[in-house]
Amino acid sequence: MKLIITKDYKEMSEVGAQHLIGAMHTQYRTNISITAGTTPVGLYEVMVPLVKDKKYFDNVHYYNFDEIPFKTRPQETGVTMTNLNNLYFHPAGIDRDRIHPLTSDNYTTQDERIAEVGGLDFVLLGVGADGHYCGNLPGTTKFGDRTTKVMEYDREDMKDVLLREVSGVEEDRPDHYVTMGPKSIMNIKKLVMIASGTKKAGIVKQLVDGVVLEDVPATLLTTHPDFTLIVDEEAASLL
Amino acid sequence: MKLIITKDYKEMSEVGAQHLIGAMHTQYRTNISITAGTTPVGLYEVMVPLVKDKKYFDNVHYYNFDEIPFKTRPQETGVTMTNLNNLYFHPAGIDRDRIHPLTSDNYTTQDERIAEVGGLDFVLLGVGADGHYCGNLPGTTKFGDRTTKVMEYDREDMKDVLLREVSGVEEDRPDHYVTMGPKSIMNIKKLVMIASGTKKAGIVKQLVDGVVLEDVPATLLTTHPDFTLIVDEEAASLL
Amino acid sequence: MKLIITKDYKEMSEVGAQHLIGAMHTQYRTNISITAGTTPVGLYEVMVPLVKDKKYFDNVHYYNFDEIPFKTRPQETGVTMTNLNNLYFHPAGIDRDRIHPLTSDNYTTQDERIAEVGGLDFVLLGVGADGHYCGNLPGTTKFGDRTTKVMEYDREDMKDVLLREVSGVEEDRPDHYVTMGPKSIMNIKKLVMIASGTKKAGIVKQLVDGVVLEDVPATLLTTHPDFTLIVDEEAASLL
Amino acid sequence: MKLIITKDYKEMSEVGAQHLIGAMHTQYRTNISITAGTTPVGLYEVMVPLVKDKKYFDNVHYYNFDEIPFKTRPQETGVTMTNLNNLYFHPAGIDRDRIHPLTSDNYTTQDERIAEVGGLDFVLLGVGADGHYCGNLPGTTKFGDRTTKVMEYDREDMKDVLLREVSGVEEDRPDHYVTMGPKSIMNIKKLVMIASGTKKAGIVKQLVDGVVLEDVPATLLTTHPDFTLIVDEEAASLL
Repeated sequence: MKLIITKDYKEMSEVGAQHLIGAMHTQYRTNISITAGTTPVGLYEVMVPLVKDKKYFDNVHYYNFDEIPFKTRPQETGVTMTNLNNLYFHPAGIDRDRIHPLTSDNYTTQDERIAEVGGLDFVLLGVGADGHYCGNLPGTTKFGDRTTKVMEYDREDMKDVLLREVSGVEEDRPDHYVTMGPKSIMNIKKLVMIASGTKKAGIVKQLVDGVVLEDVPATLLTTHPDFTLIVDEEAASLL
Repeated sequence: MKLIITKDYKEMSEVGAQHLIGAMHTQYRTNISITAGTTPVGLYEVMVPLVKDKKYFDNVHYYNFDEIPFKTRPQETGVTMTNLNNLYFHPAGIDRDRIHPLTSDNYTTQDERIAEVGGLDFVLLGVGADGHYCGNLPGTTKFGDRTTKVMEYDREDMKDVLLREVSGVEEDRPDHYVTMGPKSIMNIKKLVMIASGTKKAGIVKQLVDGVVLEDVPATLLTTHPDFTLIVDEEAASLL
Repeated sequence: MKLIITKDYKEMSEVGAQHLIGAMHTQYRTNISITAGTTPVGLYEVMVPLVKDKKYFDNVHYYNFDEIPFKTRPQETGVTMTNLNNLYFHPAGIDRDRIHPLTSDNYTTQDERIAEVGGLDFVLLGVGADGHYCGNLPGTTKFGDRTTKVMEYDREDMKDVLLREVSGVEEDRPDHYVTMGPKSIMNIKKLVMIASGTKKAGIVKQLVDGVVLEDVPATLLTTHPDFTLIVDEEAASLL
Repeated sequence: MKLIITKDYKEMSEVGAQHLIGAMHTQYRTNISITAGTTPVGLYEVMVPLVKDKKYFDNVHYYNFDEIPFKTRPQETGVTMTNLNNLYFHPAGIDRDRIHPLTSDNYTTQDERIAEVGGLDFVLLGVGADGHYCGNLPGTTKFGDRTTKVMEYDREDMKDVLLREVSGVEEDRPDHYVTMGPKSIMNIKKLVMIASGTKKAGIVKQLVDGVVLEDVPATLLTTHPDFTLIVDEEAASLL
């Protein structure tokens, strides 16, 4: 594990973008997966002008690592894809045929489809204050899980979690979500995680301390042979 | 994880040797770690004539991943090194200056010394019926541990374990051993594990099922992005 | 460039097989290309029992690097493929759908088809006393050439060369052959070349001396970042 | 070879910096070599603020690939190092002990010293209108050369060339320079070359056409398995 402490959110975003762009500059096809959410907003602001209309990135294929379907919309435009479309895919003008959504219908073949293209080369991850990454929330997936479906009855408060994810619109609330599991993520060649702000200081401290606990899902990633954690000073404040 | 089922111990030994030899044929220095014990006896019988007096393997450096010191002998010739010397280093005529023993004195700098040479490229591991590998016995190290010392009081039956390791000679029994921890092993670029015989069928089944449990230490390795498990038909009999 | 001097043809064959087998033991699909001819006969004798009926090598795809079509037979079974079928593909029982022949019809898309699967990972090459490899004979291809067709009028003696290749059967003699060019071969990640016998001592000396000359095609390969030359003592006799 | 056409000098500089920064973000030590000259001025302007005082780049070691000594100054501060110090090393505050100068005294061990640290991982190159890169001027080095010394009598106009390099100050003019040769550069894992402006349009066309000629030294690099050429629209104007 390599720890990178940046002075602020802006530098965290830039350094995260440096890693992502570095992984995209390859001779052949490269398969990557990128995170939605609020932490990477600045990173995608850096990325968009660097990637938009740049044919030299046509070798990059994007795989979704989780999805929360809106009950009232098509699977391909769940919470994650909608967010990624807004933050990156649409403003950067990424071709549809290089975006490979994860859906409630195709999640059982996600690991197999990825293996067929030679595995994922790179993933950009965020982390929650509770140690979750992708849809690996505490109390849902186990370290040994591959891509899986998490149901509303799998954790006591899951209905509330799902409701929040769809902005509190009850008719949109699905009864499940899908996510690449810990084993699927660990299988990626290079892992980069970003974290910003004092509310992440606790989980960052846990990651640096390095105790691995299933209740704190992201701690597993500290055992990966190519894991880089990029944090700003606030997120590093407990170190 | 890639599973290779061979028809017998002989083929397991040959396929394990193929992986090891493959990792040794590089343009520059390569850093590897190899297991002592009974499982690899056949593998080293394959290896010795292929390696003995072969200057084209002078690029290979060997790092020990665990050691149980005899109380009455120098640290550098503990149980593991004595066994490796007998099985491989001596018959293959490996130069002393390319063998880097792990000892009770230098274990605190093991991970750092390995990092300075660019990390380990390859490890050959065995596995116990209880799921242990290296000195990572159930109830001793945690998933997040790096190279560490395990004391006789760290597990109830550890004095007996240590006594068995030194062939029951009480005056040789140490009060500790040293081992690379789960995180140190996971940090290696390529992991290969061998298992043979019906007594390993249970742990092999657990590894293939893929549930990761700290009580079954080797299960963590199934999350590594380049882990190959080579077993014979007997060890595969519960699959 | 790494030079490996073995004591005899048998060891050259074994060490060549070690490299080839090492390249085949990967987690995902691996794309390789292997040489026909007399030099590798011993190497394939080593390989066949190691590969036959071994499902753990189902990840290996084979691409042909040259072909001399018999005028009276289908393109897919030219001189090279016929030879490889006899030496390796048939006795080792390799599935047809993992063998990708190069033919007079598809040679213009060879480099593109290889790029689409992520490039070739490994090539096993022989070398002629005149420094040729694949169909890169002195006076035919240039260093900058990709996969190409060489015509009978491209070198003064080419009709004779082609006639010898089809065992002197005039009605089988084609008016061309196809081959991956120097640039296509240099584009492969790992290059391994084998040479045996005193008749190769001169070219081996040239390769080790390292002067790069277009008239001695194989000399270009000495500039590749991962090139290994495996020779027996006779082939090394002028060093 | 991958060709990247950028719209102007600014984008060429940014994309070159993306490659360089990408190569620097590794878990362990990485060994790189970077070009002096006028083409990379904009690239280093991008780099300096990204690298200055950033401890997360302490894993990066810099090796010089050529040097023209001033006759009146210490070898370590020849034309190349003086230029690199001004453009990058000084403003970016790179530690002295991570900069490994090439000098007239140590050039005979350059390739060996680099091999001992596992080879160079990355090089950033410029290219001259005449196809030279590093000190590989037409008519000086051969494709098969490693690091070498070029003397004033090795090319008819070399005294003039050397005089121009030391700004026309006759007392500073050396009788030689040192450079990594074509084989040393080809041995690097990843090659990136930048070119800008209409005066480079001719050489860029030659590189893209892909004919390899010893008189146009850079054409050899088009045969490297990981070569990226980044040019602006003016340099691409003849394509």
